[in-house]
Amino acid sequence: MSEERLIYLPLGGAGEIGMNCYVYGYGKPGEERLIVVDLGVAFPDMDGTPGVDLILPDITWLKANKNRIEALVITHAHEDHVGAVGHTFEDLGVPIYARAFTANIARHKLAEYGVEGQAVKTCSPWPETTKIGPFTVGFLPISHSIPESSGLVIDSPAGRIVHTGDFKLDTQPLVGEAWDPDLWADVSKAGVKALVCDSTNVFTPTAGRSEVIVGPAVEKLVAEAPRLVVATTFASNVARVRTLAEAGARAGRSIVLLGRAMRRMVEAAVETGVLKDFPPVVPVEDAASIPRENLMLIVTGSQGERRAASAQLSRGKFNGIELKEGDLFLFSSKTIPGNEKGVIHIMNQLSEKGVDVVDDSMGDYHVSGHANRPDLLTMQDVVQPQIVVPMHGEHRHLREHVKISKDRNRQGILAVNGMMIDLTGNAPKVAEYIETGRTYLDGSVQIGALDGIVRDRIRMALNGHVVVTLIMDEEDEPLGEPWVDLMGLAETGRSNVPLVDVLEADLGQFLGRSGAKTLTDDDKLEEGLRRVVRQTCNTEIGKKPEVTVVVSRLS
Amino acid sequence: MSEERLIYLPLGGAGEIGMNCYVYGYGKPGEERLIVVDLGVAFPDMDGTPGVDLILPDITWLKANKNRIEALVITHAHEDHVGAVGHTFEDLGVPIYARAFTANIARHKLAEYGVEGQAVKTCSPWPETTKIGPFTVGFLPISHSIPESSGLVIDSPAGRIVHTGDFKLDTQPLVGEAWDPDLWADVSKAGVKALVCDSTNVFTPTAGRSEVIVGPAVEKLVAEAPRLVVATTFASNVARVRTLAEAGARAGRSIVLLGRAMRRMVEAAVETGVLKDFPPVVPVEDAASIPRENLMLIVTGSQGERRAASAQLSRGKFNGIELKEGDLFLFSSKTIPGNEKGVIHIMNQLSEKGVDVVDDSMGDYHVSGHANRPDLLTMQDVVQPQIVVPMHGEHRHLREHVKISKDRNRQGILAVNGMMIDLTGNAPKVAEYIETGRTYLDGSVQIGALDGIVRDRIRMALNGHVVVTLIMDEEDEPLGEPWVDLMGLAETGRSNVPLVDVLEADLGQFLGRSGAKTLTDDDKLEEGLRRVVRQTCNTEIGKKPEVTVVVSRLS
Repeated sequence: MSEERLIYLPLGGAGEIGMNCYVYGYGKPGEERLIVVDLGVAFPDMDGTPGVDLILPDITWLKANKNRIEALVITHAHEDHVGAVGHTFEDLGVPIYARAFTANIARHKLAEYGVEGQAVKTCSPWPETTKIGPFTVGFLPISHSIPESSGLVIDSPAGRIVHTGDFKLDTQPLVGEAWDPDLWADVSKAGVKALVCDSTNVFTPTAGRSEVIVGPAVEKLVAEAPRLVVATTFASNVARVRTLAEAGARAGRSIVLLGRAMRRMVEAAVETGVLKDFPPVVPVEDAASIPRENLMLIVTGSQGERRAASAQLSRGKFNGIELKEGDLFLFSSKTIPGNEKGVIHIMNQLSEKGVDVVDDSMGDYHVSGHANRPDLLTMQDVVQPQIVVPMHGEHRHLREHVKISKDRNRQGILAVNGMMIDLTGNAPKVAEYIETGRTYLDGSVQIGALDGIVRDRIRMALNGHVVVTLIMDEEDEPLGEPWVDLMGLAETGRSNVPLVDVLEADLGQFLGRSGAKTLTDDDKLEEGLRRVVRQTCNTEIGKKPEVTVVVSRLS
Repeated sequence: MSEERLIYLPLGGAGEIGMNCYVYGYGKPGEERLIVVDLGVAFPDMDGTPGVDLILPDITWLKANKNRIEALVITHAHEDHVGAVGHTFEDLGVPIYARAFTANIARHKLAEYGVEGQAVKTCSPWPETTKIGPFTVGFLPISHSIPESSGLVIDSPAGRIVHTGDFKLDTQPLVGEAWDPDLWADVSKAGVKALVCDSTNVFTPTAGRSEVIVGPAVEKLVAEAPRLVVATTFASNVARVRTLAEAGARAGRSIVLLGRAMRRMVEAAVETGVLKDFPPVVPVEDAASIPRENLMLIVTGSQGERRAASAQLSRGKFNGIELKEGDLFLFSSKTIPGNEKGVIHIMNQLSEKGVDVVDDSMGDYHVSGHANRPDLLTMQDVVQPQIVVPMHGEHRHLREHVKISKDRNRQGILAVNGMMIDLTGNAPKVAEYIETGRTYLDGSVQIGALDGIVRDRIRMALNGHVVVTLIMDEEDEPLGEPWVDLMGLAETGRSNVPLVDVLEADLGQFLGRSGAKTLTDDDKLEEGLRRVVRQTCNTEIGKKPEVTVVVSRLS
């Protein structure tokens, strides 16, 4: 056990889509020097995380091993890869490495926490490399749905790892570098120990499509639109934003970017030189003076987010602009599972305004940023790794990815969050299980997913909440009647009198029946009152609410 | 205005998918005799209706006009058409007409409310008709994803209406009657005033596919499966259930039906004679003694419902059966928008058990029960109506359906819930707007969607709940400190001391500052305490919770 070893430990993103965080280490067991690849967020929903603002990986293990961490390396600037950098910097405080565009975004995230920009070091792409502890790390350009996405070439004394990051095999991505199989083959020819690989689209059986196919369809649509055109897409898909803007400009329309994220991304892309020929943009204040048929808005909110520009426009006037009969609204995007209802709601609100909605249901106006099944096999064929380690996927994706690798006679290992894999020998093996989980950013504080706080909120949402207040006098006898407040419960039930009255009567009866043993014991008293409330509510309205009992003793 | 008129009034299902309820009337304005077509439910979700059990149409208008209602006519036995029959019978109490299979299901729903079965009258299909008030109603067989779905031929002195119900143009539906264009043309040849038509799939540009195509693909899959096979589909899709069972039987497997709805539907279909040749079924208790490779389960829960058989099997042992490595789980279904996360969760749990999951992503194992765009146009061509009235769709579906009708040089009218349409003249016109909405079945009581009860539950889920208790003595001075209870909120915030302590201190300070004017006025006092709680929480944890203040006065 004292031999040096090469380890891989996913802390987020393996067994889920979102909040990516992967750790590599080299050294003696327990003393490995570490690099962290990506530190992203996931997004909350009403089902499981009501009221939560963001979901972050649980970095308890990283904090405990902080002195062993050499650096945080970011592959690209999507929120699920860079989103937690600001929220965790105070706890980790390690140097951050990224390419220029990603570094620009990361610096803005740190600035929100008052951290200086020099914490982020800008790296040039391969063949340049950076020595980080026992590793040498190079950024290998690859196409994705955001500029400057990079695979990582991670060299250790135990061999070379190729970490793909998120990718697709696009030879014409329009913005950012194209997929260059020769470059990747060249990097791999000396032998690759492990290919740690994106699994998102493993179930899509056809080869991926290039970003270049979207342009002509969008151009035709925009050219034929008689009135105002609004298009939404992922703000970070700078190539798509440019495609949309170009279609507008060619149709003689002035372009307005609406939504903070949309402007921020274009700005970062221009600042870092990845975007050079974006059509001229007019400020939203000028939109009112431009005839509708000469105007095109490119807006945030393709996932139906309630506060983004798309939702605002669907509800009414936004930034002085109001959509009308005959306007066109294009969703140049796909709907991420879970967001369907929000997106459909917007479409129906637009329909009520007489706006014509076009989406990607026929596949003309969007392409995915991830490699499909045949592309994943192509990647394996190019890199020829000894082991395939699927990442960036739910359990079913990782499992399928292992399966297709084995069908190709390659070793594959299914490693989910918390499984530390020893990659040193010829066959990968599980070295250890680390406790992992999720941390919620809730308002301005971080809480644990298992703290019970969000569970209580879900219970109140499902069951309602009853508050019982009781004052006990100096003789440990009830002073007056117990008092009941309802929140989120029907006011009247089976008895056809106010539920509050029925509850107060039943609680009064319970107190009348109770002896000193109960009345002097807070726990017993609360438990008894709680039981009465739940029974009575169940009889009256068929629900068992959450109950808070407050007993005040004057003694 | 004293002329007799023919009206159409959707109360549910027009402007949404779910809880269908359409009213037809004939007579002098305000005195029309009415028939209600379908009375269905919609299903709640955590986003908008947490804790709610079912969503029903608001029948306030029907209750107010109860003495004018001649009958309730049910087109088919899907929950969104028949589901509210039991919950509303006490309020409406009108006779119910349906064909045998639908009547069987409706009687079971009424039985749950202690209503005798004779409330439901079984009708034979066209050419038989029933005189109901000023109307003559005939049930016109058509194919759908449930047996005995029927269009309605509704004759009134002002002309004939064809109400399609839910339908597809399937000439080989396997169970139930096939689409018979000659029959529909024959019914229509004397002239149809209005075609009131299903709009669900108006955005699907290709012609619908027949139920018959599913069989061979399923058969191949099941025959090749090495171990246990589990298949889930909509229980009411009796044809599909039979297809699945036949595939199992042909592969030499014993068939087990799992889930109450699955057994109930097959039972109803057998009882009413629509299903004659279902393979033999073994009780679940016998499953343990059958080798896995000779067993097939057909189970409920294709939409990821937490308590249905699919979810139970994905979690662990259910009815003595446990899924294992190498088993096959088939989703012979589509995922209804909003249910994606639940379904995906099950798939991942199955993946963790090593079960191979197959779904319909490639289109081999499911076909829709609704007419696609070309089918809707075919229906118009067969019926040749004077007016097309789209129903059964969200606003965007209805609008598109009107559009394609107009493109075909037909009159179309977009009528959403609450719009009473006068169909008497040559052109349809809006006669009146009726207030409509939704009623929630919440536990055992019905509450209004706008009562604020569910809104309070959502607010507690998003913001948490703080309870402040304060006792005021006989001199209207606080007796001791205010007491704070938190539910669903972080215990510690910015100050790094318990939030409860910070709140109690701030509330104490507020009380110390407050004069008699505040202390003697319950409203002022509560408002002041509430404001302090929200401000302090916002400073400490960045959230503004819901607050309940209980002030007890000893005076």
